[in-house]
Amino acid sequence: MAQNITQKILSTHLVEGELIPGEEIAIHIDHTLLQDATGTMAMLEFEALGIDRVKADLAVQYVDHNLLQTDFKNADDHKYLRTVSARYGVHYSQPGNGISHIVHLERFGRPGLTMLGADSHTPGAAGVSMLAIGAGGLDVALAMAGHPYHLPCPGVLGVRLTGRLPDWVSAKDVILEMLRRYDVKGCVGMVVEYFGPGVKTLSVTDRMTIGNMGTELGATSTVFPSDERTRRFLTAQGREDDWRELQADPGCGYDELDEIDLSRLEPLIACPTSPGNIRTVREVAGTPVDQVIVGSSVNGSYRDLMVTACIVDKRHSAANLSFHVNPGSRQVLENVAENGGVMMLLLAGIRIHQSGCLGCIGMGQAPGTGQVSLRTFPRNFPGRSGTEGDQVYLCSPETAAASGLKGVITDPRDLAAEMDYPRISDPETFVVDTSSILFPDEERFSTEVVRGPNIKPFPRLEPLPGTLEGTVVIKVGDNISTDIIMPAGSKVLPLRSNIEAISDYVFYQIDEDFSRRCRELGDTVVVGGDNYGQGSSREHAALAPRYLGVRVKIARSFARIHQANLCNFGILPLTFKHAEDYDRIEPGDRLVVSDVRRLLEKGAREIPVTIGKRQIVTLLDVSERQRRQLLAGGTLNEVRDRLRTA
Amino acid sequence: MAQNITQKILSTHLVEGELIPGEEIAIHIDHTLLQDATGTMAMLEFEALGIDRVKADLAVQYVDHNLLQTDFKNADDHKYLRTVSARYGVHYSQPGNGISHIVHLERFGRPGLTMLGADSHTPGAAGVSMLAIGAGGLDVALAMAGHPYHLPCPGVLGVRLTGRLPDWVSAKDVILEMLRRYDVKGCVGMVVEYFGPGVKTLSVTDRMTIGNMGTELGATSTVFPSDERTRRFLTAQGREDDWRELQADPGCGYDELDEIDLSRLEPLIACPTSPGNIRTVREVAGTPVDQVIVGSSVNGSYRDLMVTACIVDKRHSAANLSFHVNPGSRQVLENVAENGGVMMLLLAGIRIHQSGCLGCIGMGQAPGTGQVSLRTFPRNFPGRSGTEGDQVYLCSPETAAASGLKGVITDPRDLAAEMDYPRISDPETFVVDTSSILFPDEERFSTEVVRGPNIKPFPRLEPLPGTLEGTVVIKVGDNISTDIIMPAGSKVLPLRSNIEAISDYVFYQIDEDFSRRCRELGDTVVVGGDNYGQGSSREHAALAPRYLGVRVKIARSFARIHQANLCNFGILPLTFKHAEDYDRIEPGDRLVVSDVRRLLEKGAREIPVTIGKRQIVTLLDVSERQRRQLLAGGTLNEVRDRLRTA
Repeated sequence: MAQNITQKILSTHLVEGELIPGEEIAIHIDHTLLQDATGTMAMLEFEALGIDRVKADLAVQYVDHNLLQTDFKNADDHKYLRTVSARYGVHYSQPGNGISHIVHLERFGRPGLTMLGADSHTPGAAGVSMLAIGAGGLDVALAMAGHPYHLPCPGVLGVRLTGRLPDWVSAKDVILEMLRRYDVKGCVGMVVEYFGPGVKTLSVTDRMTIGNMGTELGATSTVFPSDERTRRFLTAQGREDDWRELQADPGCGYDELDEIDLSRLEPLIACPTSPGNIRTVREVAGTPVDQVIVGSSVNGSYRDLMVTACIVDKRHSAANLSFHVNPGSRQVLENVAENGGVMMLLLAGIRIHQSGCLGCIGMGQAPGTGQVSLRTFPRNFPGRSGTEGDQVYLCSPETAAASGLKGVITDPRDLAAEMDYPRISDPETFVVDTSSILFPDEERFSTEVVRGPNIKPFPRLEPLPGTLEGTVVIKVGDNISTDIIMPAGSKVLPLRSNIEAISDYVFYQIDEDFSRRCRELGDTVVVGGDNYGQGSSREHAALAPRYLGVRVKIARSFARIHQANLCNFGILPLTFKHAEDYDRIEPGDRLVVSDVRRLLEKGAREIPVTIGKRQIVTLLDVSERQRRQLLAGGTLNEVRDRLRTA
Repeated sequence: MAQNITQKILSTHLVEGELIPGEEIAIHIDHTLLQDATGTMAMLEFEALGIDRVKADLAVQYVDHNLLQTDFKNADDHKYLRTVSARYGVHYSQPGNGISHIVHLERFGRPGLTMLGADSHTPGAAGVSMLAIGAGGLDVALAMAGHPYHLPCPGVLGVRLTGRLPDWVSAKDVILEMLRRYDVKGCVGMVVEYFGPGVKTLSVTDRMTIGNMGTELGATSTVFPSDERTRRFLTAQGREDDWRELQADPGCGYDELDEIDLSRLEPLIACPTSPGNIRTVREVAGTPVDQVIVGSSVNGSYRDLMVTACIVDKRHSAANLSFHVNPGSRQVLENVAENGGVMMLLLAGIRIHQSGCLGCIGMGQAPGTGQVSLRTFPRNFPGRSGTEGDQVYLCSPETAAASGLKGVITDPRDLAAEMDYPRISDPETFVVDTSSILFPDEERFSTEVVRGPNIKPFPRLEPLPGTLEGTVVIKVGDNISTDIIMPAGSKVLPLRSNIEAISDYVFYQIDEDFSRRCRELGDTVVVGGDNYGQGSSREHAALAPRYLGVRVKIARSFARIHQANLCNFGILPLTFKHAEDYDRIEPGDRLVVSDVRRLLEKGAREIPVTIGKRQIVTLLDVSERQRRQLLAGGTLNEVRDRLRTA
């Protein structure tokens, strides 16, 4: 049968289940990716499994998030990650070497493979035609231990690309166009697969941009064909042998279909405070800008920095703003330097930073009060920048550079009057730099693992009791992101390896008193609206509430990764059978889920919940495997029990 | 009469007094320098004076300290400083443009002029033969308003330099040798003036290194002759016209004399936790290193970065450590890039940061628990790095680079076996970049000053009462630095423009309960040992305690800048007449200074203090002018009163 690319990769990696959208399947994982913000806990979880060596074909630990080091904690984490990686055979990419997704694309990514990454933007590996999926750290720890990855089989949205992008319009505008059409949850449960004659007009890093930010559509992943451009990129990276062709079969089908004529796109921008809040740049042009940042995993490539450099060359950023560049990787910056771009950026008054996530994860670069910040980043959820009430816009490097020169939001096509569009080609041969990656070797397996005082072991979680009782501790609306549940930023991220300490910040942005109330109330319940838990893959948004005693979350619907994380840490993810019941629960209500253990054991999908004297019906849409996790009080308990009885 | 350089500059700028060491003089100030950590409060103080335009010949506001921006506060301060500078005619150097001292040397410094800077490392301008002095922000605000600067006339320590530095030994080792001889208070009350045949072997930035860190000797300032090398530097900066020769007269005298044979120096290192704790690098060689940082105002020059680049060229930093470079200015980095150094640094695995103070002021780059950090910085006071119990060593770029390659503290002369010493010359013509400095112009005077919510007006301070009573709230030992009194770092620095908020952190590192006790006790007294208030010039170390009710400090001796700051904010700086009385005061004691107002008015030097039933005699060694400041409750009150009655 004619297969699309998604089906090809899934079928060659299928370990359990059938490729029927919505049914749970398990796939073999070839590569695993960790970054430091999720990876410290993931490595603690991996250690708790008691396995001697990593079993995945390739496991990489990147350090790209917690680079600021305002006290001992981040540097301690880096040393822990370096030594624990050496001990267990994990590749270790040192701090400053670059953002996981970009380094992985440059140095490791290969067409047709699967990758599981403890970072929601892992699908950026679509650039080299991987099927790369973001997941919780524990899922990645299990994949590193050789376990297959379980997920609901995704549907496939085929997007046919035709035409060619006009001058001043780039890959970021393609994904912003997708967000204009589908908003932040329009592709939940889907892989977005691009095909058609327009694909070959996009470079590997263009495809990375589109795949990376496909996460904002709610998509499980994004895939692109592997073609001549893929071969050229891998050849330029000194990795021609890693190339293989990967095309959808002629006549293959897609679960849904859409089409984008690239030649008709114009510069788009995501306005505060959602990546789905799309306007044309024209519509908001003239808005004064205080800060511009080019970089991040979605737009930190050689092309992105060089197009910025060429636009600002022999000009200067506007006096009213601060213009930053965050290189995607050290190798990107080396190639930009080699081609004269560093001088262009510096002479234009731009602040060039070490490569890493930086402001994209709220690690510095916070805008001032009421200031407008224009960023080429993938996300602008409220407060993610580190500033309450922030006004963050997301756009292409072209729009950022034009606005950085003019001091107001500017459609880059307006620059056509003063300059030609600098169309950037990748070098035929990249400067290649693997020297900041520590490869596993025999000698390193004897490395002693060094743990700083902020690195605490994984907490003990109790199994599901016979009957669950709890108090509703908070009720929130739709599209609550994991940034709201468990903030990132420079204050909170360094606590990722210390669950007791980080749990003080759960829901802190919208309810400073949350953790204190939880500690008083004992077992508790959180009530949410639609698309609860969208955004970052962070498992701490499940683990830290669980640590505080949250045993049940009832929502209208859950974002995919967050729901999996809830099961991983033994929080019951229930949805309302009747959506209107959402209006019938209030904070302070006492909930009882009678006989919940028995209900889960017998596989019940409908779970009655008593609220005071009323009863409502909720649904538990989880797999058999997830039921076992919930019963055990979390996946780590479940796997450990299984290893013990095996 | 034959004059030394110090006497020449002082006599041409003398406004009041006579050039007799120890007597108070007032000098005209040509240039003023502010950075953002001190400058926000200084500009608030300047505004409080009610003057319409800056009256100094050249006033520059740099932004180099608070670059991390973990929330709205720093970006708000930057916007305040940009707009308030425009409003009052201050030059504004934008964030990322570089460290004040290095940019000032490159773009503005001129031989024979005086400069007052609200930063203790201001004497780095010795590189271009300025007499540059660090002071509190209020002193600088007054100088901006055209007031002369009052100080005790310094003595002059003449240091004759002979010979030429051997390979692998550089200017940092000269100042470390001075610290070995004089420790951190051996030059209090002195200007260190270098002369002799060795001077011409040192470049302008070598002299800057020596002048900058001369502050750690307790010196008032450092001066160098202006000679052919000065001319060559200014010419290479496109400022030949700013050059003039400046030499000591033949046969001039010095109050003290010393001599250094440069050819006999070897690599030195300041061990934890004082810049005066000097060893040879050989003595501590082999110590494993976790972090190396090259940069800061003392070693962030073109030469410093290029010598580092050339040493690490085609090699790689050791796997066990993280190697950082913090360029001194954007222009430095541009010149390093122009000469191939950026690629050398990147390929060696070095993290290149935006230019600024960064880790030198605890703004990021904190080492991990128990980790050894080797830095080319001027200071290693305990905790200044952001990590409690830190192990920070101070050394030359050569020692840092060698250690960064080997992973252990390494005498750079050991590299001679593998490479020639890369002796770096400045370019004949520097890449010159003034584009990130906003120059005053007519249009900008109408700029509206923008104040974020964390920018609070200068607090109201009460005049000195007739009799002072207070409780001893803390008693500390010798060499207490302003870092201990008022910590810097990423958490505290952003509060510099909000005295109420920052006062929570006074003595926080050694006594977390200090500010709470002060708030309970009302008026209080601090007791200190020798050299109390050494280190940074920060006036917040006087203003914040005063805000908390500290009205008297009694110490064995005070560091110069801190004593002036105490007078500026109306805290009585008393010293023990009998040193042993230090042992007779304990926390909790109730002190009474009877009739203190009358005693000050009549110019008494001996101030009796009653402690319970005992009485001790203390000394008030301040000028007539400072008595007026103390009576008024601080300088701002005094100047305002004077303007009102004038």
